[in-house]
Amino acid sequence: MEETKHYFEGVEKLVEVWFADPPLNPDDADLRKITKETWDGLLRAVKCEIISFTKNEEVDAYVLSESSMFVSKRRWILKTCGTTTPLNCLKPMMKLAAEMGFVEITDFFYSRKNFARPELQLLPHRLFCEEVKFLDTIFDGGHTYCLGQINKDCWYLYTLSHPERERDDRPLIEIPKVEMKGLSEPDQTIEILMEKLDPRIMKIFTKELCTDGKDATVKSKINEILPDMVIDDFLFEPCGYSMNGINGRGEYMTIHITPEHEFSYVSFESNVSMNNYTDLINRVIQTFLPSKFILTIFANKSSEAYATIRELEYNDYGVQWQRSEMQCCNFPSYNLLFATYTVCRNQGDGEEENGEGMKC
Amino acid sequence: MEETKHYFEGVEKLVEVWFADPPLNPDDADLRKITKETWDGLLRAVKCEIISFTKNEEVDAYVLSESSMFVSKRRWILKTCGTTTPLNCLKPMMKLAAEMGFVEITDFFYSRKNFARPELQLLPHRLFCEEVKFLDTIFDGGHTYCLGQINKDCWYLYTLSHPERERDDRPLIEIPKVEMKGLSEPDQTIEILMEKLDPRIMKIFTKELCTDGKDATVKSKINEILPDMVIDDFLFEPCGYSMNGINGRGEYMTIHITPEHEFSYVSFESNVSMNNYTDLINRVIQTFLPSKFILTIFANKSSEAYATIRELEYNDYGVQWQRSEMQCCNFPSYNLLFATYTVCRNQGDGEEENGEGMKC
Repeated sequence: MEETKHYFEGVEKLVEVWFADPPLNPDDADLRKITKETWDGLLRAVKCEIISFTKNEEVDAYVLSESSMFVSKRRWILKTCGTTTPLNCLKPMMKLAAEMGFVEITDFFYSRKNFARPELQLLPHRLFCEEVKFLDTIFDGGHTYCLGQINKDCWYLYTLSHPERERDDRPLIEIPKVEMKGLSEPDQTIEILMEKLDPRIMKIFTKELCTDGKDATVKSKINEILPDMVIDDFLFEPCGYSMNGINGRGEYMTIHITPEHEFSYVSFESNVSMNNYTDLINRVIQTFLPSKFILTIFANKSSEAYATIRELEYNDYGVQWQRSEMQCCNFPSYNLLFATYTVCRNQGDGEEENGEGMKC
Repeated sequence: MEETKHYFEGVEKLVEVWFADPPLNPDDADLRKITKETWDGLLRAVKCEIISFTKNEEVDAYVLSESSMFVSKRRWILKTCGTTTPLNCLKPMMKLAAEMGFVEITDFFYSRKNFARPELQLLPHRLFCEEVKFLDTIFDGGHTYCLGQINKDCWYLYTLSHPERERDDRPLIEIPKVEMKGLSEPDQTIEILMEKLDPRIMKIFTKELCTDGKDATVKSKINEILPDMVIDDFLFEPCGYSMNGINGRGEYMTIHITPEHEFSYVSFESNVSMNNYTDLINRVIQTFLPSKFILTIFANKSSEAYATIRELEYNDYGVQWQRSEMQCCNFPSYNLLFATYTVCRNQGDGEEENGEGMKC
């Protein structure tokens, strides 16, 4: 029997698209020319809406009713949680981009953790294979991976960053031209997907304890995680929190919090460039105190983070965290580190023990 | 419509079980005391039979009608191809082992490549999730992985080498006691699963060109791959080849060949201890000239191969091979390297190009 109790799926679906500079007038083409009204229309197909907006020279950052969207000149990131349907706006968005001259995609990533309650999702998001089938109607030669344990705590990835270089016979360690066209700039993304968080900290992200987003940002010390970020934050009624941060180097961070004790979930994501993420990871997990988390780091070969993925392989985050899974994938232009961590039992913080892996 | 043309699934299902030394009379307990007649009975449930046998001080090696079985004091390896059902003999085998005192399993691995024609398999082997469901009725807490691309060229693993150390708070880099009980000896396994092989070489493994197993072994130079192995080989009528090799150090190698052009497949497996597998891999692929192959290397922390997995990550096998996928997993007591390679197109050897990844 299905329970009818309140439930919210904090786990996000994450779309990241990189377009090649248009062959004609590359300086004029800019995805940020798409108006808020046009985005409003596109996001109806996703079942979410824009609730706040901030920008700087490099990037436009939207807080959505379910998570966030970041738009820069030729990169589009859409991250949405709950029962939203982000893939449904992919074709219209690509059509729009093509009208601006962005006719070629250089990289595409769709990723998500397994859902806790997949049966509540809408088409085509109930199963990863369903999402893959949908994406295969748009792209040729997408590659699909499941990192972590199949059907339990895992993380799915669909990417066009082809491992197979079909028209190229250089060693794989080099970067295939076709992939890297326009991608010579360093790029890296770190995500920390946290579950079963400290209830005392989660309490901050409710209207019971805080008046607004700014209040929650300061009380939780989210503003100290990456201090140079200009923050746009939002506290939902009666609970829940979203924030985008952007800095002058075009870097972003975004945090989304589902504080309800029964299904607490916090995600942190940033493309901040660092040659060692250990301190950042420690700050994030000390801010939220999860009982378990998934860490993913993508870094391309131009990124200073590229080499440090190796270093992180050997890093356990202090005595209270232990790594339970670790996988590293080499793609032609990116390295990917995937790891899962759990809190040690003898360091219990009042949170119950982690249960079984979730079925998907 | 199903094609009724001749087809043989060369891809093997591989079971490896390590038992703990029995608490009572550990020196007396020995899986090799199981008689050939008893194995004959057990293997009926697998739908294969023993066709040849050889042994030395360390290990008993059986050539089967579909692949091989290796029995040592407390380790049992069963590798079978075609439409055999190796999981069906697992419970009876464990019952038999328990009667000899082997009541505790320290490690269990079930692995296989995706099948080319899964619809031809018998229960519970048609889908990996079916196999997992079956194994979950026997074991608690099995961990399941899919390396490579989901539903395409991939390799499935079910293991009890738990990444989660639930009663242990030492850093993961150390070896959990519970896992390593009786497993302190170095252990490593290398597998090379090759497809679309050179038809001129495959011809050797037919009765047209060779009179018997020995003839094929020498003509193909299989005996030069690991020269210290005592070889037991078999050439099938009208084609197909199996060999086991064992040496005095308790090491084994095993090769199985499905030579038919439409679905040619060769597997190489060995637990030979080396601090660098590069030369061995080169010898194997030069012997068979596949158009593509999967490489997997397991090595526990006592193994001299453990550190060299890292080195292999960076190794492309000469100019004619390119790595298309590479993943590395850290388990508590084992490291696992998974990689796929394809031949470069401009080095074509008369074989047709690789087609799409196979659906599973």
